Amino acid sequence: MKIVIVGGVAGGASAAARARRLDETAEIVVLERGHHPSFANCGLPYYVGGKIESRKKLLVAPVEMLRNRHRLDVRVRSQVTKIDRDRKQVHVSNLETGDQYTESFDKLIIATGASPFRPPIPGIDSSKVLELRDLTDADRMHAIATSGVKRAVIVGAGFIGMEVAENLVLRGIDVTVVELADQILPPWDREMIQPIEKHLGEQGVKVLLGESAIGFQESAGDGLTIQLKSGQSLDADFAVVSIGVRPESQLAVDADIECGPGGGIIVNDSMQTSDPNIYAVGDVTQVSCFVSKTPVQIPLAGPANRQGRIAADHIFGRSSTYRGTQGTAVVGVFGMTAAMTGLSEKLLQRHDMPYEKIYVHPSDHAGYYPGAQGLTLKLLFDPIDGVILGAQCVGTNGVDKRIDVIAMAIQASMTVYDLEEAELCYAPQYGHAKDPINMAGFVASGVLRGDQPVLHVDDIQSKEDSERFLLDVRSEGEFSDGHIPDATNIPLESLREHLAELPSDQPIAAYCKVGQRGYVATRILRQNGFDAANVSGGYTSWMRRSLDSE
Amino acid sequence: MKIVIVGGVAGGASAAARARRLDETAEIVVLERGHHPSFANCGLPYYVGGKIESRKKLLVAPVEMLRNRHRLDVRVRSQVTKIDRDRKQVHVSNLETGDQYTESFDKLIIATGASPFRPPIPGIDSSKVLELRDLTDADRMHAIATSGVKRAVIVGAGFIGMEVAENLVLRGIDVTVVELADQILPPWDREMIQPIEKHLGEQGVKVLLGESAIGFQESAGDGLTIQLKSGQSLDADFAVVSIGVRPESQLAVDADIECGPGGGIIVNDSMQTSDPNIYAVGDVTQVSCFVSKTPVQIPLAGPANRQGRIAADHIFGRSSTYRGTQGTAVVGVFGMTAAMTGLSEKLLQRHDMPYEKIYVHPSDHAGYYPGAQGLTLKLLFDPIDGVILGAQCVGTNGVDKRIDVIAMAIQASMTVYDLEEAELCYAPQYGHAKDPINMAGFVASGVLRGDQPVLHVDDIQSKEDSERFLLDVRSEGEFSDGHIPDATNIPLESLREHLAELPSDQPIAAYCKVGQRGYVATRILRQNGFDAANVSGGYTSWMRRSLDSE
Ligand SMILES: Cc1cc2nc3c(=O)[nH]c(=O)nc-3n(C[C@H](O)[C@H](O)[C@H](O)COP(=O)(O)OP(=O)(O)OC[C@H]3O[C@@H](n4cnc5c(N)ncnc54)[C@H](O)[C@@H]3O)c2cc1C
Ligand SMILES: Cc1cc2nc3c(=O)[nH]c(=O)nc-3n(C[C@H](O)[C@H](O)[C@H](O)COP(=O)(O)OP(=O)(O)OC[C@H]3O[C@@H](n4cnc5c(N)ncnc54)[C@H](O)[C@@H]3O)c2cc1C
Ligand SMILES: CC(C)(COP(=O)(O)OP(=O)(O)OC[C@H]1O[C@@H](n2cnc3c(N)ncnc32)[C@H](O)[C@@H]1OP(=O)(O)O)[C@@H](O)C(=O)NCCC(=O)NCCS
Ligand SMILES: CC(C)(COP(=O)(O)OP(=O)(O)OC[C@H]1O[C@@H](n2cnc3c(N)ncnc32)[C@H](O)[C@@H]1OP(=O)(O)O)[C@@H](O)C(=O)NCCC(=O)NCCS
Repeated sequence: MKIVIVGGVAGGASAAARARRLDETAEIVVLERGHHPSFANCGLPYYVGGKIESRKKLLVAPVEMLRNRHRLDVRVRSQVTKIDRDRKQVHVSNLETGDQYTESFDKLIIATGASPFRPPIPGIDSSKVLELRDLTDADRMHAIATSGVKRAVIVGAGFIGMEVAENLVLRGIDVTVVELADQILPPWDREMIQPIEKHLGEQGVKVLLGESAIGFQESAGDGLTIQLKSGQSLDADFAVVSIGVRPESQLAVDADIECGPGGGIIVNDSMQTSDPNIYAVGDVTQVSCFVSKTPVQIPLAGPANRQGRIAADHIFGRSSTYRGTQGTAVVGVFGMTAAMTGLSEKLLQRHDMPYEKIYVHPSDHAGYYPGAQGLTLKLLFDPIDGVILGAQCVGTNGVDKRIDVIAMAIQASMTVYDLEEAELCYAPQYGHAKDPINMAGFVASGVLRGDQPVLHVDDIQSKEDSERFLLDVRSEGEFSDGHIPDATNIPLESLREHLAELPSDQPIAAYCKVGQRGYVATRILRQNGFDAANVSGGYTSWMRRSLDSE
Repeated sequence: MKIVIVGGVAGGASAAARARRLDETAEIVVLERGHHPSFANCGLPYYVGGKIESRKKLLVAPVEMLRNRHRLDVRVRSQVTKIDRDRKQVHVSNLETGDQYTESFDKLIIATGASPFRPPIPGIDSSKVLELRDLTDADRMHAIATSGVKRAVIVGAGFIGMEVAENLVLRGIDVTVVELADQILPPWDREMIQPIEKHLGEQGVKVLLGESAIGFQESAGDGLTIQLKSGQSLDADFAVVSIGVRPESQLAVDADIECGPGGGIIVNDSMQTSDPNIYAVGDVTQVSCFVSKTPVQIPLAGPANRQGRIAADHIFGRSSTYRGTQGTAVVGVFGMTAAMTGLSEKLLQRHDMPYEKIYVHPSDHAGYYPGAQGLTLKLLFDPIDGVILGAQCVGTNGVDKRIDVIAMAIQASMTVYDLEEAELCYAPQYGHAKDPINMAGFVASGVLRGDQPVLHVDDIQSKEDSERFLLDVRSEGEFSDGHIPDATNIPLESLREHLAELPSDQPIAAYCKVGQRGYVATRILRQNGFDAANVSGGYTSWMRRSLDSE
């Protein structure tokens, strides 16, 4: 068996190593265009910022290790230029020597990844406009970031843009981020990501939303001017473009291998392309979304690694299959964390999938133990059977933990009722006797059982909603510090004595700070014959919302 | 509907609050013997040590809040002395006034918890022998710990003993821990808990295993002498006895309500006792183990809280049921963490349940990102179908996260094959592209698929195993720094060239530092016709084991 693998990093190297473990006699050729296989893409931003000091640390599995330990025929600086399906061979160009040759295969694995999207903006080819995908990019950015420059503009506020922003600030550089969308970190829902946006500002990073770069111009001296769509322009020493990636699937396209509309190579659950002798894994593929079952391109390292393993398995007759990508992701931004799994609310809307949602704002661990910090957890679920569709969490500590737990629940097709009964680690420095996961389960289950009909701040804001009586059940002090316009304040503790003051012919929206007292008020009111509902996430969610519409 | 609840903390207060939310008109009486309902039992050790400075913080839901917000008739210092099932009433003694009265009920919930076990050791009633269950105990321990004393002896190295040890050290007190078992933290398996034992020593805590207190004697001056079984005796200023708890079920026993052999009140999955009008929740109950389905008494706050909620649900005709306790637990000891879920190896053995196990020793996050620290994860699973039976994890960071994920997997009856495919949060400061969870899944699945037959260090140690050829595949440097006696060193990288030197008629045990290179070696050897197996956890597990038998 001769296996040729194009691309030798996350997906490719994983496939190669697994293939060797499955078969000592196979011939395994790894063709990698770059200088190094198996490097830590995900560490690049932190190398730029100096958190990772040694470049060598980024070389996860150096060539020698892959050769000696796994007997892989790894060839770096070797670019595949063509796939010849009929002859079952690839054309290879040795980038060092310029030599061209062909290499035959029994099975081919395409693991070419995705490349940064570079729109045809005037001036984008300037040497002062950088991107960050590989070690060469990182070397370039490292050099400029440590050269005493003062200002950088980052175009695109996705994962990589955010990580680069943090790391340039670590180098003492003034950073402005320009993002076309109306929020940073577009995979998350907008209201969830607000605290991170605010936090960025507090770190001195300027964020321009709904804005895009339309030109880069090297200015006199050593500078660069970035023209924006709004007419504004920004001066900087350099710019970084990080507005998403595109599957590097040209080889497949040229070989008439089926690709999706986004350019990803279409694969089945054994990672086979439309040509059963050719597999594709990682960022170059279009896979199925685990939740919606629709086609997706989600460029993440975990899926790439596992897909590589599955392709190797299938080549050697194993039955493991890929279940689809859930989209579990995490990003750290100046000490805060955003994580998510499954579908976002906007994707659910785009797919026209019915859903309900709730928010809880608990602390990461018991409030009575020092260091407890707030987090916000949003849960999206099927309004009929309660199956969990997605979750997002933002905070400082314990964020990845909660999303990992829900990621597991989604894998198991669990419902919000299962979250009620989850039995998780509890000691006061780690969580709560009722963990935020349980709490989200309680609230969501209560909504589905009709115990607490739920309203969302967007309902409250909408014009049609002016007929609703807004009841603030927080304390007088909390109320006078700020409240939703037109709300009436009756603190929960005395609500039962003031029922007569409430309208019996008008729907009531009760709210508190985070939703918990609002819920108790809702229970009291409904049992007394009022048509009451609870505002999910309470005033905390309202404040996010109204920041939003500023 | 009139509900009477005996005990007003975790289980009792949760039942009461939930009952009120379900029914505004119910009469709900909470009878609590102590001075406060709803206090943070789990925070008491940290109050003693000063991490929690304000005693007020421990009062999670003060009486006024329960009265005003939930209209609960909470009566503190009110001890129930008898349950009269025929008359459906309880006898109450007001501990302030000495008054006795009866209170009728439609439904009764027993939530009396568990009390520290106090064996009849001479001198145990000395005022210098403390225990820690409630605020009064905590006040006493706080007073003595801040009075300038120098030495304390803790009898019992369970959760509470460990937490008290840490907190007394924080107060500058010299601590010796005496434990009857051959390990600290007996719920964990012995080899897993070794690093914590070592860590305790490094913090200056002396641990005496296989030892017990047989007498306490107040000495001249202000001291206390603790006589030990071995004949040794220890001088201290005070002692703390924390050798486990016993269900406070005497009320139930006296009322002929069925209890199990360990004293726990037997309940069904709606938390009803043998008298359907009487419920029991929390530490006072005997419930079913989620994994083994055998009766267990596991005193934890999460289960108590959820059981209280379920009892209230059932009283009001709701269908929620308790699924059994999994035993998910976590404890922090001087910055290290031990967590577990499901059954331990020793419990599996005790239940005669077939199992297989593997160990992995990855870092909590990507090794190339600063701050990565090792953790050990042990996975126990069904040897036939791979269903997960239990897991234990010990380390510094990310320990509770991994156990929470596996706790969820156990709830969903998932297998080790599901762990292979888990899609978890990954960025270098949070985890790995192949998370320790995936890694444990890979290894366990490889064992079940026969890819890597597994040996354990105990197999290697056993006399019968002298016939096995021990192959160390680490580097020469690692080997010369220490190895398993009688092992032969052939580094993995050159193994393929030295196959001729290996015995073809003898089983081979391959090992490396943690198991990964040993696995690759095993693959190479098996495919070359050798009868090879991999030593799970490698030399790291061996070192634990041999520490163990010192
Ligand atoms: C800066 C940065 C930070 C990231 N952070 C995270 C993170 O925190 N978490 C996360 O989950 N993911 C992260 N990612 C994404 C993650 O790195 C990718 O999802 C993953 O590497 C994809 O693996 P792959 O094998 O598909 O592609 P890659 O790892 O990109 O490997 C593809 C390789 O193929 C080579 N190649 C392409 N075409 C050819 C050809 N014709 N011939 C020969 N070789 C070719 C390329 O040179 C490249 O080295 C990050 C990515 C970047 C760039
Ligand atoms: C120091 C300490 C640390 C702990 N740490 C943790 C931890 O980190 N994580 C964890 O999960 N668990 C921990 N626990 C255990 C946890 O607190 C218990 O599992 C939980 O409180 C049990 O709830 P319960 O309602 O059954 O009993 P309790 O919370 O103990 O409440 C029972 C109440 O009933 C009252 N009572 C008893 N008899 C009568 C009577 N006859 N009449 C009236 N009232 C009566 C008692 O006064 C008591 O207040 C800890 C416990 C202690 C003591
Ligand atoms: C380094 C690289 C080549 C490794 O590939 P790999 O050998 O398949 O993966 P790992 O080193 O993680 O090892 C996993 C294997 O070791 C086994 N293993 C791990 N720990 C083990 C242990 N303690 N005992 C026994 N086996 C163990 C696993 O079972 C698995 O083998 P399997 O797939 O045959 O079941 C590849 O992951 C890579 O190139 N990574 C860097 C690039 C990258 O991922 N970038 C994105 C993230 S920054
Ligand atoms: C304080 C105590 C009385 C609280 O009981 P409780 O009101 O049932 O519990 P919580 O305060 O955690 O609130 C949970 C309720 O609020 C609801 N809730 C929480 N956050 C909400 C939000 N943001 N929006 C809407 N509802 C919310 C939940 O759905 C749940 O209601 P439900 O059970 O009817 O579904 C009880 O837990 C207690 O005594 N605790 C201290 C003792 C203890 O547990 N000790 C051991 C650990 S230290």
